[in-house]
Amino acid sequence: MKNIIVQKYGGTSVGDTDKIKRVADRIKSYYENGDGIVVVVSAMGHSTDHLVELAEKVNPNPSKREMDMLLSTGEQVSISLLAMALEAIGVPAQSFTGSQVQILTDGNYSNAKIEMIDRSKIDEALNLNKVVIVAGFQGIDKEHNITTLGRGGSDTSAVALAATLGAKECEIYTDVNGVYTADPNKVNGAKMHSRITYDEMLELASLGAGVLHSRSVELAKNYNVVIHVRSSFHREPGTLVVSEEMIMEHIRVSGVTLKNEEARVTIPDVPDKPGIAADLFWELANKDIIIDVIVQSSPANGKNTISFTMPRKNIKDALPILEKFRDTHSSGAIDINEKISIISAVGVGMKSHVGIAASMFKALAEKNINIEMISTSEIKISCVIPEEKAKEALTAVHDTFI
Amino acid sequence: MKNIIVQKYGGTSVGDTDKIKRVADRIKSYYENGDGIVVVVSAMGHSTDHLVELAEKVNPNPSKREMDMLLSTGEQVSISLLAMALEAIGVPAQSFTGSQVQILTDGNYSNAKIEMIDRSKIDEALNLNKVVIVAGFQGIDKEHNITTLGRGGSDTSAVALAATLGAKECEIYTDVNGVYTADPNKVNGAKMHSRITYDEMLELASLGAGVLHSRSVELAKNYNVVIHVRSSFHREPGTLVVSEEMIMEHIRVSGVTLKNEEARVTIPDVPDKPGIAADLFWELANKDIIIDVIVQSSPANGKNTISFTMPRKNIKDALPILEKFRDTHSSGAIDINEKISIISAVGVGMKSHVGIAASMFKALAEKNINIEMISTSEIKISCVIPEEKAKEALTAVHDTFI
Repeated sequence: MKNIIVQKYGGTSVGDTDKIKRVADRIKSYYENGDGIVVVVSAMGHSTDHLVELAEKVNPNPSKREMDMLLSTGEQVSISLLAMALEAIGVPAQSFTGSQVQILTDGNYSNAKIEMIDRSKIDEALNLNKVVIVAGFQGIDKEHNITTLGRGGSDTSAVALAATLGAKECEIYTDVNGVYTADPNKVNGAKMHSRITYDEMLELASLGAGVLHSRSVELAKNYNVVIHVRSSFHREPGTLVVSEEMIMEHIRVSGVTLKNEEARVTIPDVPDKPGIAADLFWELANKDIIIDVIVQSSPANGKNTISFTMPRKNIKDALPILEKFRDTHSSGAIDINEKISIISAVGVGMKSHVGIAASMFKALAEKNINIEMISTSEIKISCVIPEEKAKEALTAVHDTFI
Repeated sequence: MKNIIVQKYGGTSVGDTDKIKRVADRIKSYYENGDGIVVVVSAMGHSTDHLVELAEKVNPNPSKREMDMLLSTGEQVSISLLAMALEAIGVPAQSFTGSQVQILTDGNYSNAKIEMIDRSKIDEALNLNKVVIVAGFQGIDKEHNITTLGRGGSDTSAVALAATLGAKECEIYTDVNGVYTADPNKVNGAKMHSRITYDEMLELASLGAGVLHSRSVELAKNYNVVIHVRSSFHREPGTLVVSEEMIMEHIRVSGVTLKNEEARVTIPDVPDKPGIAADLFWELANKDIIIDVIVQSSPANGKNTISFTMPRKNIKDALPILEKFRDTHSSGAIDINEKISIISAVGVGMKSHVGIAASMFKALAEKNINIEMISTSEIKISCVIPEEKAKEALTAVHDTFI
């Protein structure tokens, strides 16, 4: 039984036919090592956007079933072209849709969850020494309707395949070298990790580090799949995302990230009764508004102050909900600050080190940066700071820890 | 149990999103009559050409399996967009790929034959009062590989569905009003048939009348499906293609057609031995060269002259085969005339009328048009004539019979 490697190439890696040929060349070199190669691909570059435009022209509000039927064609185009490109350089290959390898999902169109994958057709092709190419992002429900997996879907397809096949590694090819301690475009001295834990990756991903989607990391954590985040432009290794046990000694802070385009909302004088805040956040979630940091002050006179951050672009949608909430529950004025950023330090090592928060606050204070809100978890400290100081703050905190 | 009508819309009818909306409006009016509507659609306009171009860029000679995987996405885009367009005007609709309604074919990629269709999912959707939209041109083999049906494939899909569902009629929407006695763009006074037999349609189709592909007509004949060829631009009825029994009295000649871009090849002095001609035509068929009229003169001195017509554009591919044949079997020079046309008169009524051939020859003679070759069948007479007289010949023969 040979080693199986799962490789995933995103939309930019297969953006045009020349890039598809380059991906084929890379796959060929792995194939010649004698490993069993299973490749997951996304739709070519902007082809999904083009399909969405077509849909909008015939129906501004199409059913999700038909949208999934439409969008899944994008990956089907990529897999067949990549198989052809491999055949052209003498590598036998066979492409499979989500339906053909029975990537069975629930029936939640546009955001389906994978329930099971049937490996029999994949094994058959691997035994015939073929490279197996599977369409990412798509599956079928038990009625054979086509479903798509939502944002980051192809990463999730790749990890699920790696788990099903017991693959040695799930390689996620991207346009960066790996996972860094901070955005290397913004911070001099940002370093690439050779290893990082699932939990750290999850915090970094949800903070917008943008390399891997959270769902795929959660899945990898549950099934103990090693993810290798690496560049499709060269052959150097990237960052391995692994379980905590696979990292001998943890550095205290593994990454510092910045989240921009956020706003801070404060509602004073909210009665300290159970369920009131829950109602508000439930209504905002129903509008797909993503709340990040939430801070509730201790009650004074039975009244709380609730502060939270949300994407700046959603303020318009949120306002009616906020005003209704104030009219019902609060006597104070809503305060919104649209000029904030969130800086976060993430690290599994924090758990066993004291003084990380203190060091972070000190680093910010030394630069005279005011902290509006603080939120901490086991492996993350986030501070809401003025937007105009964001870049300076990032460098200061990064320099302190790394 | 309500009436089921199968409608097929070709690539030009769904060429852009506005045209798709227009098709949706038409379907709506039939839906509101209370009939069960099953729609078959082709890929949008030139989308198939675009996919072929992409394939050529990665592999000049791709495997047929991967080509079918690629091309079948074109119809999947159309069906989802049409379903969305129907939903937008309040008509419930559901699209299905060939795989989802189990259009089971043999494994002959790029030219597969339909073996069976499972009607259960279609019936389910019809019972929920939905318009059913099925991707034309595609099916799956028993290993669930995607197959395509080759030229005219969507017509064949529509007829096969009509046969499976016992549909009242299979409507083929096209850009002409129906089937004419001659090309109305070339012959003044060409008349549209209200009815025509399968056999006549077959002869007219293979002669390049170009409305329906032969395979779909053969299938309709075998399963006694009434085909209604009609225009997608207006609501007037077009031509019904039916069995001979459904036409009370036959006119003698139902159509006169012209085939251009042909060449005549003559090879003299071929020994009169069985199998020699068969070898030649077998080799030409292997190069996908379509031979039409074949005439073999009676042997003189044990030698035959073989003449046949073939598409002019294939002469280059045919030459090596012809020269090898001459070197092996013949002592004479190959004569090729690239300035010919084939004029044919077709009609079930010919069988019971005498003198049709004579009338046709006379019409041509009166215009001083030389006949190079003649070929006759029960319902067809074809004459090879000089290309520069083709248009004149068409009018003369049409005027004689119609």
